[in-house]
Amino acid sequence: LKKKREAKNPDVRISLPVVCFVWQIAMIILFGVFVRYDEESDAHWSEHKREKNITSDIENEFYYRYPSFQDVHVMIFVGFGFLMTFLKRYSFGGVGFNFLIAAFGLQWALLMQGWFHALDPADGQIKIGIENIINADFCVAGCLIAYGALLGKVSPVQLMVLTLFGIPLFAVEEYIILHVLHVRDAGGSMVIHTFGAYYGLTISWILYRPKLDQSKRLNGSGYHSDVFAMIGTLFLWMFWPSFNSAISDHGDGQHRAAINTYLALASSVLTTFAISSLSAKRGKLDMVHIQNATLAGGVAMGTAAEFMITPYGSLIVGFCCGIISTFGYLVITPFMEKYMKIQDTCGVHNLHAMPGVLGAVVGAITAATASESVYGHEGLVNTFDFKGKYAERTPATQGGFQAAGLCVALAFGIVGGAIVGFILRLPVWGDPSDDNCFDDEVYWEVPEDEESIPPILEYNSHMVGKYADRM
Amino acid sequence: LKKKREAKNPDVRISLPVVCFVWQIAMIILFGVFVRYDEESDAHWSEHKREKNITSDIENEFYYRYPSFQDVHVMIFVGFGFLMTFLKRYSFGGVGFNFLIAAFGLQWALLMQGWFHALDPADGQIKIGIENIINADFCVAGCLIAYGALLGKVSPVQLMVLTLFGIPLFAVEEYIILHVLHVRDAGGSMVIHTFGAYYGLTISWILYRPKLDQSKRLNGSGYHSDVFAMIGTLFLWMFWPSFNSAISDHGDGQHRAAINTYLALASSVLTTFAISSLSAKRGKLDMVHIQNATLAGGVAMGTAAEFMITPYGSLIVGFCCGIISTFGYLVITPFMEKYMKIQDTCGVHNLHAMPGVLGAVVGAITAATASESVYGHEGLVNTFDFKGKYAERTPATQGGFQAAGLCVALAFGIVGGAIVGFILRLPVWGDPSDDNCFDDEVYWEVPEDEESIPPILEYNSHMVGKYADRM
Amino acid sequence: LKKKREAKNPDVRISLPVVCFVWQIAMIILFGVFVRYDEESDAHWSEHKREKNITSDIENEFYYRYPSFQDVHVMIFVGFGFLMTFLKRYSFGGVGFNFLIAAFGLQWALLMQGWFHALDPADGQIKIGIENIINADFCVAGCLIAYGALLGKVSPVQLMVLTLFGIPLFAVEEYIILHVLHVRDAGGSMVIHTFGAYYGLTISWILYRPKLDQSKRLNGSGYHSDVFAMIGTLFLWMFWPSFNSAISDHGDGQHRAAINTYLALASSVLTTFAISSLSAKRGKLDMVHIQNATLAGGVAMGTAAEFMITPYGSLIVGFCCGIISTFGYLVITPFMEKYMKIQDTCGVHNLHAMPGVLGAVVGAITAATASESVYGHEGLVNTFDFKGKYAERTPATQGGFQAAGLCVALAFGIVGGAIVGFILRLPVWGDPSDDNCFDDEVYWEVPEDEESIPPILEYNSHMVGKYADRM
Repeated sequence: LKKKREAKNPDVRISLPVVCFVWQIAMIILFGVFVRYDEESDAHWSEHKREKNITSDIENEFYYRYPSFQDVHVMIFVGFGFLMTFLKRYSFGGVGFNFLIAAFGLQWALLMQGWFHALDPADGQIKIGIENIINADFCVAGCLIAYGALLGKVSPVQLMVLTLFGIPLFAVEEYIILHVLHVRDAGGSMVIHTFGAYYGLTISWILYRPKLDQSKRLNGSGYHSDVFAMIGTLFLWMFWPSFNSAISDHGDGQHRAAINTYLALASSVLTTFAISSLSAKRGKLDMVHIQNATLAGGVAMGTAAEFMITPYGSLIVGFCCGIISTFGYLVITPFMEKYMKIQDTCGVHNLHAMPGVLGAVVGAITAATASESVYGHEGLVNTFDFKGKYAERTPATQGGFQAAGLCVALAFGIVGGAIVGFILRLPVWGDPSDDNCFDDEVYWEVPEDEESIPPILEYNSHMVGKYADRM
Repeated sequence: LKKKREAKNPDVRISLPVVCFVWQIAMIILFGVFVRYDEESDAHWSEHKREKNITSDIENEFYYRYPSFQDVHVMIFVGFGFLMTFLKRYSFGGVGFNFLIAAFGLQWALLMQGWFHALDPADGQIKIGIENIINADFCVAGCLIAYGALLGKVSPVQLMVLTLFGIPLFAVEEYIILHVLHVRDAGGSMVIHTFGAYYGLTISWILYRPKLDQSKRLNGSGYHSDVFAMIGTLFLWMFWPSFNSAISDHGDGQHRAAINTYLALASSVLTTFAISSLSAKRGKLDMVHIQNATLAGGVAMGTAAEFMITPYGSLIVGFCCGIISTFGYLVITPFMEKYMKIQDTCGVHNLHAMPGVLGAVVGAITAATASESVYGHEGLVNTFDFKGKYAERTPATQGGFQAAGLCVALAFGIVGGAIVGFILRLPVWGDPSDDNCFDDEVYWEVPEDEESIPPILEYNSHMVGKYADRM
Repeated sequence: LKKKREAKNPDVRISLPVVCFVWQIAMIILFGVFVRYDEESDAHWSEHKREKNITSDIENEFYYRYPSFQDVHVMIFVGFGFLMTFLKRYSFGGVGFNFLIAAFGLQWALLMQGWFHALDPADGQIKIGIENIINADFCVAGCLIAYGALLGKVSPVQLMVLTLFGIPLFAVEEYIILHVLHVRDAGGSMVIHTFGAYYGLTISWILYRPKLDQSKRLNGSGYHSDVFAMIGTLFLWMFWPSFNSAISDHGDGQHRAAINTYLALASSVLTTFAISSLSAKRGKLDMVHIQNATLAGGVAMGTAAEFMITPYGSLIVGFCCGIISTFGYLVITPFMEKYMKIQDTCGVHNLHAMPGVLGAVVGAITAATASESVYGHEGLVNTFDFKGKYAERTPATQGGFQAAGLCVALAFGIVGGAIVGFILRLPVWGDPSDDNCFDDEVYWEVPEDEESIPPILEYNSHMVGKYADRM
């Protein structure tokens, strides 16, 4: 019987290695042709420094952004990775496949984003520095959010395909939003969260599994896996101020973005606990809410964090998001699963989609109401980058463009997700059968439970008993 | 029978949401009235920079303190949170309630500390920047330490009340110590650790439960929960140099504080292992000691870290603290429980109270013996801030004031704890019954054990067996 | 029977405390005689700043290196510590003994490295600052790597002895390589990884246990211990860019080292997944590979990270290392155990030895082919420090010296390991018997399993059953 079940398991022994090898080799070739160091990471820096009258090495961009980069890096790999370990028997897949696709995605993102944003016209090459690798991590975040909707139901090969298409979609969307529309979105409420969430949800809709309840026994958390997931939650929560400030303006821009995000997140925590307790018998809290909805304030500050939204404005945003997001877990996710055929394992609709859209709206309003009296003349110009051909743009106009940016993000997410979803339905990617979802056994060598190791002397007799039990 | 037991469980379904909502709304209103950005996080920074002849954005306070801030932030949420996951069935409560009260406390601290330390006399508003949010995290630490003494025995509502009163107590105490007495305490041996520990211990004394041994079966660690707790221990241990240097003087002050703390902590580890091994049959180490007493050196360097205590002085402090703290776990905690009716779940008396007091004494002695030959004239003035109306204060006098600061911290902790303890004894806060302490079931939806999930085919028959077992 | 087994357990109740106490006291005395603050951490900094015309506190070395230091610190304690929790019943020993020997080793390293590198000729004292504590953490890494080969088979006293000898061996080796040969090795492919791995492997060879399969039941991972180990893996992986850039040159040096390491690591991940999947039935991934071989790219960039190896060069290095390292786990470790009598618990040969040697070779080639057209004149001089008596050295010569450095590292590792191995064979160190390896019970008070805690009402009857079971 066990063999029979094993036989249904997909075999990725050829497809996964081929995808990894071929794509990694492609990366090497493309990097060889296109990617070089920028002025601040090239050994010619000392000459560059002299030319530009830079007096000290501490002015190197590295020192402005490296601490934030490392925090963002932790969010991508430990934050997203461990947040997805909450399923009782899919922790390997949660943290492991997150690791795989992020490592591939960041290379691919350096290329795609480079072609759009960092191409040196002098020699046609992409010049990379610290800001590029932060942006590559951001780009990857979009695909990891999408993974959240699909957790446990797809093969690693499908995830690689999702990433292969997701990164260019992201790069084009980002180019249109940030450069063509000249929209501000330093922490990516639109560019990252809205796009990523709808990309994943649309794919999940197309990959709908009517018989998923055959895996119901495994689609839930365990006591320890919930604690592991809190590692992810907390590193995301703590470092979100770095996420939203990592690429905002030097000086007050980064400073303000960090403070605003810090406040919004704190506010989310209280309303999440409130709604979670209110919704359950005897006020018992639900770990799913605490692990996720507490983060919604950070998502929703992705656009407005660098603006003069004021400290209490940040608290209000966080307040609303904690409520909306927890409400989503209680009502909207079950509704979407039942009536809209969208199975959203991690609830990315509640954590990324709704707060992302809200964040875009908040950003548009905050931008539209910006004024010289609040920002100062220079402050307004710097914050919204009203320079060059955008020197004449007013805050009100900027608000309109911000709203347009949201539409672009939604369109790219949904249309891109539909296309990629159909590609992922091809029967060649080795996805698990309906009764094998959420199970690490399918793609991993899973060790025997450590709990079943008896003390040495009782070993043999105990083993007999154990096997007898299972007969 | 199960129903009967359930019935005894407290119901926080009204009280917890009400407290979270009302207090969060109060925060928003108070922030609306009082809190604004300071000069370095306001969009007027570029004008401010020009006025003050600041040549580069890298001079923004953000770049001096942000990496330390993030480390402190990790200590508050992952450090304290995971340290309190050591109980076998209270990991949710340990990390979850820590999250809740820290998120509330930091907002409340920004206000309370702001009124005392950061009020702009020009407009009566609190101007916040990176240093304020570090200080808010510090302030929260005091309440989290108090939580350590009460872990598993109080409801989340009680913890919110503890924080509501703890933050203003902290802010007043801090104002008296740092501003009225002009005491130096950058890492808070007195202000944070001594206050927080005695605040929590006094509350625990007033909430004494004579029949707590009815929950004995759950008042202990498990193999995995002990490993989880090591996450907390290590992040506290590694980032303590940032804690003690986060708000000390630019340049040599931060630099020296980090080095001194680094050394004291290393020294604590060795003496903790030594005493732990010495005290047990066959020299077996006890995880409780390793998780806690290794940190005592950091606590005890809270005052003196920025002084010229010398590297070997730091090692000596750590050496003593590892011994004292481990000894506390072996002898003093059981003694206090048996004879003084103080139940101290995490042993905060050993980790925070004793090393905090010792740190205050070490700080007073180090200050009293400071001299121009060791510090240089400018160094002495900068380190002890002998400026303005304190220009005439001598090191010896400073030593006396440092000692006075310790008394203030003790008084606030004990008197404040007594008052708050009596408030928490009111029978309205939903605390667990004596046989339900240390149990996540009371306040959390706890998942079925992941270990009990059988392979798919044996599922049905196994479930029968399992339920039969439990009948 | 249980008593009989207990009786075979070693007793470290005298030896461990004595070693900890005596060595910590020795550290205090030696620090008292030799160690003081350097110019940047001393209270005379403000005078020093004026003398050297340093305009701002932000120029203090602290701000260049502190964020990197904290990342390295996390790698040493959480990274190495949690990576070694993968064994199902040796997690306490993995993370706990790592903690102990690192805390001792960093003090000892400050002294040993100080005598060789940081001795102030004016007063014969070691002047320490941020760079010294980073280097002390690096030095400790060598011993922790060696611990990886011995995990579960040695006593904490043996580990302390291993560290006592390992640190001076490291310091002398480092002095010869970096100062006598004037080799560049900022991330320590040779100095740290090659030395540490061969030091540990040689000791393991000498301590060979022919009957180790008596502990076979415990020499493997468990589901949760594998997830714990991923914490270690990811913190090592994420912060490795900081490791390789922590002590490289200000400005472009640190910037480039971080980028190169980031890329090499990403590339390693894909080839690791590819080989792991390719080697197993149905393409199932093996956690051991994912936990370890993904890091090989960081090891192999230890020498060349700060060079102009180019982004695609970094990808190629990572590509090869992922393959080699995974192949090592599949083929070489079993081969070494069977035919060479080297039992390598963590596979340090695959993660540190082979990638370290490869990294040294890559570094030598990259150095030998360096040119002014690529680096610029100043860049070449700065990167390879062709100054003072090395002003005439050419890149080609430098390449030769780099290769010579590798030989020194190998020689110190093997010869040093042989000597220390023989010392560790003395029958006085309390090592576990062959059937007690990989078992925390030997050196730790291990709690009863949390899983075995029944709900309150069934408690008594269940306990009877449980104990009956164990009779």
